[in-house]
Order: sequence, then structure tokens, then C-alpha cells
Amino acid sequence: MSGVFITLEGGEGVGKSTQLTVVREHLMQSGRDVLVTREPGGTPFAEAIRDLLLAPREEAVSGQAELLLMFAARAAHLEQRIRPALARGQWVVCDRFTDATYAYQGGGRGLPQEEIAVLERLVQGDFRPHATILLDAPVEIGLARMQERGAPDRFEREQAAFFERVRGVYLARAAAEPERFIVIDASRPVEEVSAAVRGALDALLERHA
Amino acid sequence: MSGVFITLEGGEGVGKSTQLTVVREHLMQSGRDVLVTREPGGTPFAEAIRDLLLAPREEAVSGQAELLLMFAARAAHLEQRIRPALARGQWVVCDRFTDATYAYQGGGRGLPQEEIAVLERLVQGDFRPHATILLDAPVEIGLARMQERGAPDRFEREQAAFFERVRGVYLARAAAEPERFIVIDASRPVEEVSAAVRGALDALLERHA
Repeated sequence: MSGVFITLEGGEGVGKSTQLTVVREHLMQSGRDVLVTREPGGTPFAEAIRDLLLAPREEAVSGQAELLLMFAARAAHLEQRIRPALARGQWVVCDRFTDATYAYQGGGRGLPQEEIAVLERLVQGDFRPHATILLDAPVEIGLARMQERGAPDRFEREQAAFFERVRGVYLARAAAEPERFIVIDASRPVEEVSAAVRGALDALLERHA
Repeated sequence: MSGVFITLEGGEGVGKSTQLTVVREHLMQSGRDVLVTREPGGTPFAEAIRDLLLAPREEAVSGQAELLLMFAARAAHLEQRIRPALARGQWVVCDRFTDATYAYQGGGRGLPQEEIAVLERLVQGDFRPHATILLDAPVEIGLARMQERGAPDRFEREQAAFFERVRGVYLARAAAEPERFIVIDASRPVEEVSAAVRGALDALLERHA
């Protein structure tokens, strides 16, 4: 039996970390063998790339270099961690994946979607998540939640307009692939969001019973 | 006036560092404004990627991840350093460039040449060196010279068969693009190699007078 690959997506401050825990707990309570991982990262090598990507630096890093680093981390993550886990029959839950690249590097930084598609094809072939949970909230709500947290990293220092573009790409991708995406309104109280996430998982559990 | 881009290529132990100095000195003595740089590296960000690539690690790094990192460093190097220098009219001399990727990742590690070509097109478009000096020597000579030096890095620990494949790709590329490549027999005494390099540069200086 082959496993199920679920990705969790969303902009800043939508409660992704909280819902990641909800997803893991709910799948474990349903008797599934669960691996939780994240992008960029997931292996020591990919985490080192993550550090490189998120470190504040004086040099202006080209969007294309950033994009190539993202896919380098993804290639390692897929080969060393995600594919082996799926082959063992695990449910793999990943905090961000390629949709985030389209949203952040494509929408946010304005890199051509075709460049991302070239790299997606190179690294993933036809490999896609079985399901993608998109936590969606208006940008001003996410940013307000973000400011209650610690020191912002390089991505978080970007402007509201950037996050509007990120959100726009996420929603457009969800509209284009409604069979893969589950869009959840994350502006509601956290208990309601968690209930919606559990409901979505129950449907998935039934489909992959 | 636009500058001239020269790359210096070759396997391990062919005397590339020595000849890099010869190239710089000869061009400076000919009154050219010279920038010497290297790949992977050339900017702080790209040097950080270089460190990541060359660090010995327990995790087996996929060849594709390595390839993507190489081109990430190259994208930054081209945008921040090489193209601006050429636009200023400088002669840019680079210790290894994309031919090394074809030789090491393609020939050495066995990654498909088409994958490298996809990334070359993405990152460089039609951009190629004006001239490439290939220092060529039988693998056993290079390896013998290498062992006189310090602790080997990850690439240097690879086997002789690896370096035979590297050399094979370099020579095949030189044969396919004779107008760009200058192949110099690096198994001769260093003074003869240096004289051959200076002769090749004189022809280039005349062509780009």
C-alpha cells in the first residue's frame, strides 16, 4: 500500500503551525502512520539550504537563485524523505510545498510561472500532493497576527502588497485544481478552523481507506 | 565597449590555480582591466552555496540537488558580478563555469546532459564564454599531483573512474566547439604550459583589440 501526501499551505499568520498539529493528531487518532515535515527543509542538507534562504543578508539575492535553491532543497527532500515514507505507506504531511513556490517566488517576487513550471517538471515529474489544505485569510489579519510574534525573517519583512500577490496566486491555483485543494477560511476563531480541517481530513481518510 | 569572458577549465591537479595567475598577469600586462573570479562562488551568497556543496556530509546528496545548487550559485554570480563587469568593459576570468557542470555533474555523477541543458538555458539564455581554456592531462598525472596537497574535499575523494568521465566530457565538449575551446596539454613542464596559455591569450587579445 502506498501512502498519502498532504500539503498545508497559506500566507503569514494564518495559523499554519497550529493546524499542522491538528492534522497530525487527527491522522494519528485515526490510526495512520504519520510523518510531519516541512519545506524548505526536511533533511539536514535541505535545512542547511533553508538557513541560507532565510538568513538576512546585505547582498540582494536574485529571485532566480532563490528559486533554484528552493528546488535543490525539494529534490533532496523528495528523494531522501517524502518518497521513501510514501513507499512505506505513511501519510506524509508537509508544511508548504511547490504551491508555496508559485505563490512566494512567482506571485510575491514576480518570477515567471513558466520558470517555476520548468523546475517543477525537472524535479517532480508528475508527482503532486494527493491533497492540499489552503488556510486562507485576508492579508491584514495575517500581518496583524504576525506582529505579535518575534523578530521577522527576510521574507516576513516584505510588504503587504507582496502578501496580496501571494494570496492571489494561492487562490488562483486552488480555483484551477478544485479536486486537489481544500480551501479553509482561516479568519474564523481557531476552534472553527480546526473543526473544518478535521472535516476535510475525514473525507480524505474515507477516500484513502 | 563590452568586456571579454574567459573561463579556465580542467580536472584535478592540472595546474589550474597556477595558470589562473598566469592569465591574470598576462592580461594586466597587456593593459586590460581584469576581474578574476571562480565557480561555484564569486559572491558572498554564492560562496555560501559553495561551502554547502563542498562540505563533507553523511547524508547522500542527490546529484540533482547538487546540480540545482550549482546553478543557483551561477545565477547569483552572473547577475551580481560577471554581467556588470562585462558591461564595464572588464576582462572576466572565471575559474570553472558551466563546462565544469557538464563534466562533473554530467560526466562524473552521471546526471543527464539534458537536465543540465535545461538549467543552462534557464539561467544563461544564450550567454556563453568568449573563450574557454581547457588544461588537459591524463587522470593519473592529475591525481598524483593532488595527493601532494592537503586534505581532500568531497569531490576530490571520488575515484579515478569519476575523473576519467570528467575528462571525457571536457574533451568531447572541446571537440564539439573548437572555435570556443583552447585545449592545452597540461602534462608538460609548467613553463611550457604557461607559454602555451600566454600564446592563446595573445590570439584572443588580437581578436578583441
